[in-house]
Amino acid sequence: MKRSDTPSDPRSHAPSDSTFAVVLAGGRGTRFWPLSRRALPKQCLSLGGGPTLLQQTVSRTGLPNERVLVVTGPDMAGAVRDQLPGVDLLVEPSPRNTAAAIAWAALEVERRGGSECFVLPSDHVITDEPAFRTALATAATVAESGALVTLGVRPTRPETGFGWIEMGEGDGSDCPVMRFVEKPPREDAERFLAGGRHVWNAGMFVWSPEALLDAVAAYLPGTTAMIKALRRGSTLADVWGLSEATSIDYGVMERASGIRVLPVKFGWSDVGSWSALLEVLPLGEGGAAIAEEVIAIRASGNVVHAAGKLVALLGVNDLIVVDTPDAMLVAPVGEAQNVRLLLEEVERRKLGRYA
Amino acid sequence: MKRSDTPSDPRSHAPSDSTFAVVLAGGRGTRFWPLSRRALPKQCLSLGGGPTLLQQTVSRTGLPNERVLVVTGPDMAGAVRDQLPGVDLLVEPSPRNTAAAIAWAALEVERRGGSECFVLPSDHVITDEPAFRTALATAATVAESGALVTLGVRPTRPETGFGWIEMGEGDGSDCPVMRFVEKPPREDAERFLAGGRHVWNAGMFVWSPEALLDAVAAYLPGTTAMIKALRRGSTLADVWGLSEATSIDYGVMERASGIRVLPVKFGWSDVGSWSALLEVLPLGEGGAAIAEEVIAIRASGNVVHAAGKLVALLGVNDLIVVDTPDAMLVAPVGEAQNVRLLLEEVERRKLGRYA
Repeated sequence: MKRSDTPSDPRSHAPSDSTFAVVLAGGRGTRFWPLSRRALPKQCLSLGGGPTLLQQTVSRTGLPNERVLVVTGPDMAGAVRDQLPGVDLLVEPSPRNTAAAIAWAALEVERRGGSECFVLPSDHVITDEPAFRTALATAATVAESGALVTLGVRPTRPETGFGWIEMGEGDGSDCPVMRFVEKPPREDAERFLAGGRHVWNAGMFVWSPEALLDAVAAYLPGTTAMIKALRRGSTLADVWGLSEATSIDYGVMERASGIRVLPVKFGWSDVGSWSALLEVLPLGEGGAAIAEEVIAIRASGNVVHAAGKLVALLGVNDLIVVDTPDAMLVAPVGEAQNVRLLLEEVERRKLGRYA
Repeated sequence: MKRSDTPSDPRSHAPSDSTFAVVLAGGRGTRFWPLSRRALPKQCLSLGGGPTLLQQTVSRTGLPNERVLVVTGPDMAGAVRDQLPGVDLLVEPSPRNTAAAIAWAALEVERRGGSECFVLPSDHVITDEPAFRTALATAATVAESGALVTLGVRPTRPETGFGWIEMGEGDGSDCPVMRFVEKPPREDAERFLAGGRHVWNAGMFVWSPEALLDAVAAYLPGTTAMIKALRRGSTLADVWGLSEATSIDYGVMERASGIRVLPVKFGWSDVGSWSALLEVLPLGEGGAAIAEEVIAIRASGNVVHAAGKLVALLGVNDLIVVDTPDAMLVAPVGEAQNVRLLLEEVERRKLGRYA
């Protein structure tokens, strides 16, 4: 492909006054336990000091607060509200996966006069913000035609834990989506990486509320019934249960036709577990650390989170060490995905104060 | 040998009103960093919750406060005083090793009318207190003859880091000392262990002040000059520098004749480093831990000190994990002796607040 992934002369414009962002902040992020808790989920953490992932997500859109909607759950609404004063929250009565939340948010954007809508996860890291904003603007232009647009991150490794998107032949910045492939086997992922026709599904979408709600109407009758009831003035709590508890990917994107994908490259990480800090943070003595001071002797590849403390590492490699005011975690980097096992044990022992 | 190491019918009596204990609490214990600090040395730590090593040492003597003297240094005098209200402190103007401290303490015991004196390190663990007190009483009886008596701990491993004492043939509970062997090579230590004629020098002594000061007079002229000046009313700070800066072992015990050794067995550990907690603390989930709660999954042999916290260990073995309010340590158990390297680095970087 000749085109640039992050065109410097996009068919773009500054976001119009009717552009909104919907930020999905309902996830729990158990793999960052014990720093993340039920009332302080991953998106509310500051992994590198400074603004939290959620705050970074909102500020990265470049949109004013009144054109940002944050969808979250009742457990974490307090933390989200504290971090984003002046931003409207949409608090789900209960978790029903992303499709219902996104459909409801589309209705709320429509009610506020929004003509286009960025849908963004709240717990990812993006290092190249100008490239990100250029990509959003480009995708918004594509969405003007009524298409559902998904951003597809150029892959950098044969990751088997992500969903992949196969791109068809495009004639501009964007391409048709040929196929979604959820968590492929290793050999497929390697082929996808080598072939250059696949990108990662990062869960970032751009569309008009009308286009999204039309697609919902085609595939999710329960969610559509909920939207109709809301339009008639029903209370959310009364009709929330009508919606399908499914993801936007499975419920809509993998079924709808005419989906466009915009391949992008802007230093993206989903920061899926503690080990990801080795990619996201600058590497220093002993590994990637958030701490007041690190002393490392014969130590490398470690992930350390001990805000405000001196951390002394002697002869240890590839360890995760997390300190919080009431709990500590020590595990090899290779066990990062299994941290949830500890949280399960916390709950089994009825130590809910640590969950 | 037919006799019992800890006779149940010793030639003993309850400590007389003129029995004193001198507790040596001047050491710094850098191998317990970062829990131990300049102002909070190892002896002031509670390694298992409850009383500190120093408090345990004093209470273990069975003597009333007014017959206990604690020798310490100016840096840590505050912590020692806080832990032992009602006990007289002897604060050394500067560290000059054990001989000067013990000689000065002997003078102070003599001034208080003491006729016999236990000299005890303040940072050891002893699990069998009745056996310990029986041993002290037995040693006191031996010391009545004017002998310098050292307690020799029956060895349980071929330890190369300790001093060993070769015993001659005894005719009762105690034996003559044939030879002191400082830190023997491995093969010698193994021979000593197998032979049954060697015990560990644990730095615990029993003698009358007169006998000790007589021996000091024979081998340490500077220290003797200091004692004489003190008797004449000199101020300690003015004459402290006259004393030899040497250990009681090297300065007196290894030179004097007629030293007696009482072999003992009372669950002794010098708790020389973090790894010793594996022997001293009860083993639980994941290893030896002082913590509010431990969750261990595929984890064993660890040493954890994180008072008041939940510690979650996942797939880690034989690690030392120490948490304090301002500093953390993570190292393999096998590196326990090298913790001082971290402290040296702390000082090199002028991070004295952590030292």
